[in-house]
Amino acid sequence: MTGTWSEAAEVLGADLHLELTGTGSRRAVLIRALREAVRSGRLAPGVRIPPYRSLAADLGLARNTVADAYAELVAEGWLTSRQGSGTRVAARASSAEREPGSSPGGPAADGPAPLPYDLVQGRPDPARFPRAAWLASARRALTAAPHEVFGIGDPQGRVELRSALAGYLARVRGVRTTAERIVVCAGAAHALRLLARVVGGTPWAVEAYGLPFHRALLAEAGVRTAPVAVDEDGALVSRLPRGAGAVLLTPAHQFPTGGPLHAERRSAVVEWARKTGGLVLEDDYDGEFRYDRRPVGALQDLDPDRTVLIGSVSKSLSPALRIGWMVLPPALVPGVLAAKGEREPYSSATDQLTLADLVESGAYDRHVRRMRQHHRGRRDRLVAVLAARVPRVRVTGIAAGLHAVVELPPGTERAAVAAAARHGVAVEGLDGYRHPRAGARRQDGLVVGYATPPDRLYEAALDALCAALTEALNEVSPEGN
Amino acid sequence: MTGTWSEAAEVLGADLHLELTGTGSRRAVLIRALREAVRSGRLAPGVRIPPYRSLAADLGLARNTVADAYAELVAEGWLTSRQGSGTRVAARASSAEREPGSSPGGPAADGPAPLPYDLVQGRPDPARFPRAAWLASARRALTAAPHEVFGIGDPQGRVELRSALAGYLARVRGVRTTAERIVVCAGAAHALRLLARVVGGTPWAVEAYGLPFHRALLAEAGVRTAPVAVDEDGALVSRLPRGAGAVLLTPAHQFPTGGPLHAERRSAVVEWARKTGGLVLEDDYDGEFRYDRRPVGALQDLDPDRTVLIGSVSKSLSPALRIGWMVLPPALVPGVLAAKGEREPYSSATDQLTLADLVESGAYDRHVRRMRQHHRGRRDRLVAVLAARVPRVRVTGIAAGLHAVVELPPGTERAAVAAAARHGVAVEGLDGYRHPRAGARRQDGLVVGYATPPDRLYEAALDALCAALTEALNEVSPEGN
Repeated sequence: MTGTWSEAAEVLGADLHLELTGTGSRRAVLIRALREAVRSGRLAPGVRIPPYRSLAADLGLARNTVADAYAELVAEGWLTSRQGSGTRVAARASSAEREPGSSPGGPAADGPAPLPYDLVQGRPDPARFPRAAWLASARRALTAAPHEVFGIGDPQGRVELRSALAGYLARVRGVRTTAERIVVCAGAAHALRLLARVVGGTPWAVEAYGLPFHRALLAEAGVRTAPVAVDEDGALVSRLPRGAGAVLLTPAHQFPTGGPLHAERRSAVVEWARKTGGLVLEDDYDGEFRYDRRPVGALQDLDPDRTVLIGSVSKSLSPALRIGWMVLPPALVPGVLAAKGEREPYSSATDQLTLADLVESGAYDRHVRRMRQHHRGRRDRLVAVLAARVPRVRVTGIAAGLHAVVELPPGTERAAVAAAARHGVAVEGLDGYRHPRAGARRQDGLVVGYATPPDRLYEAALDALCAALTEALNEVSPEGN
Repeated sequence: MTGTWSEAAEVLGADLHLELTGTGSRRAVLIRALREAVRSGRLAPGVRIPPYRSLAADLGLARNTVADAYAELVAEGWLTSRQGSGTRVAARASSAEREPGSSPGGPAADGPAPLPYDLVQGRPDPARFPRAAWLASARRALTAAPHEVFGIGDPQGRVELRSALAGYLARVRGVRTTAERIVVCAGAAHALRLLARVVGGTPWAVEAYGLPFHRALLAEAGVRTAPVAVDEDGALVSRLPRGAGAVLLTPAHQFPTGGPLHAERRSAVVEWARKTGGLVLEDDYDGEFRYDRRPVGALQDLDPDRTVLIGSVSKSLSPALRIGWMVLPPALVPGVLAAKGEREPYSSATDQLTLADLVESGAYDRHVRRMRQHHRGRRDRLVAVLAARVPRVRVTGIAAGLHAVVELPPGTERAAVAAAARHGVAVEGLDGYRHPRAGARRQDGLVVGYATPPDRLYEAALDALCAALTEALNEVSPEGN
């Protein structure tokens, strides 16, 4: 059977024929044809494909058949689906499988994962955004703002926000800063892009486990990265490569394996920076979410002139605000501003003022406290359920953050990710976070984000995860341990 | 006399000595020393310099002396001053004089001009931002928004905003588009940066008069530009350079000289695009502000598959929102999204939804109409005052926009800009907008932005401008014409 994909033609501005040939069910044939169209590039990344109803009508297939085929391709990472935006070809679909961790804090380019249970790390539950508090701050801030707020903005960021952040970061994270040292940016990725243009020296040392997205953007900016092994005490900073211009660390909560950087290593890396002239880049991505004891303060405090602290509201409020910051050594401020450019996209003045009010009014603290309690409850439940139902796995990295690592027996990670997808769980394997040149030691595991699912789905998500893990572990070693 | 600049040391993280030596008044000596510190790079662009009170105390000078010196250096473009952010070294101060037009829609990097009368083109009066309407839209939009708004955003932009813009642009500018063709970005500069990475072919043709900032960012992105002469009917598109990949035009209102692109030339440039495969980039920067007859529709309408329309709210609402858009041929959408990147800074979801509501509710139309009336009043007054008091100049480019060109006798432009500064008027000469390889024909003139000053200062600004022009024209040719 052969069909013409008429709506796609409209979208693509060119004809596209789907060759529905070969053996197998209609569903399987359709899946193969769509995969082939994506792989060959006829369906380019980002292109919106027709609603399943339309395609079903065009091809004379049952609606369920097409809907199932879409769901399968979404699960495989070829397509992405988002409410209100339809189904699209995934950004990296042509590389055949979705690279785990390829987008920080979330799945493929076009939005939340389409599987019913989203345990991909990195995002707070969007339902918990404090709308009322945000609107109240917006009203206060925009009513009181001087007119010049609506003129050309300061590329360094609104002084109201920088002052509020300086106070907040000092109080909550032990950061030593003034408003003058802070540059507002659109998030951690934006911060790294800017720093890559200003901070010299190559390679940069990065943790052997970390966000592939960060490594990729550094590579794109011409910065080579060299992996530094991590253990339960964080990065082994005694092994920084010779000549490194900077080291990118997650001291509060190693990402994603979960250990805080040991006190001796904190001193050692600052000592390294002083001796070599290198810079410590401190990615403080979830420093506010620590559960069982006093928060680990920022490393920046040890030497504010040799460290850059990078933070954002992406974990604490929402990634949709596009507000982050750098706390810089004063000597770096002019260079970073020059790299940012007079007209480089910067966060909107309205949101900056609103966030400043949220912080100054105490509403931000209240929200963070509420979320901390919520996340801790989620984490406790994950640990308890897995202990009861899948005792063969070990849950680590649980002292802080919005995710944990479920350590798996050797050789079972891939099967576990696949089983999870079959059970409707979007979750990523640890291997996707591994630096390509990391050493021999390799840990199988899942990076489980427990913050994203809405309350009504969380128990079901844990059920599905347990079922998937049980299935995968039995598949690989049916006799148990 | 010699002094140490102690606060600057704190800012710079290194000692800075000001050698207060040589002849002249204390003020002159200080000015010379500061200029030298900037020129030599000891005071880097963007660095904040101490409050004049502190420096006066440190150096044992009268406060007035230091304040006067700062004011002079600000007027000369070495420093910039902004309420709440202090005085800083200007972004391009080291090139000795501020390059006119080097920042689009405004003076140097750090904010509004320090001179009392701001007639630099490009920005609406920030006092006229519709705060109440914006807050009402924010409340409606954020109350009604689905939770996923606060998740990872769609790099193409919120579908609500793209739909609202598609309707608005079709209705008001005659643009042919759907939401799928629109990519939201942070402004026109961001649009050009993205297009530079996607649209092939070099050089790009640009108008012989245009924003130096746009040329500079294209050059930085590796795109060579070749100038095309302009006359009162816009760009001479019959003279596009061979092999050009794209032509960047301002068809509604040539920037800054002011003519709309003639109908025959509109057809001709689209014909060129069809024949050569080149692309027409339509910078529709102020298409909504046309005064005396029906608006000229967008050129995009002639061939939506060969043109990219670029727009933003920077002129209609505020540059502080960082919201712009591209209307793209469908074939370009995936490439532009890939260039934007999964995590490239994009406009905040809250502002996007608010703007969508503003447009859909009709409040945006009402604001634009109100502003159009206001700008027309400003323009009429400029024309009338100059006709009465400086009849030797000619005001052109007045049919639309937020600025006009005051044509001057040959050889008088530089004197006019300097005289304006002496009279407290920040205004730019036409020469700064000229492409370095533009042809022989050169027009002396001032680009006068009449939208920025608050009402209470506008008459005084015009007075000062007239006084400056009279003085400058007498200086250069005291006998009159």
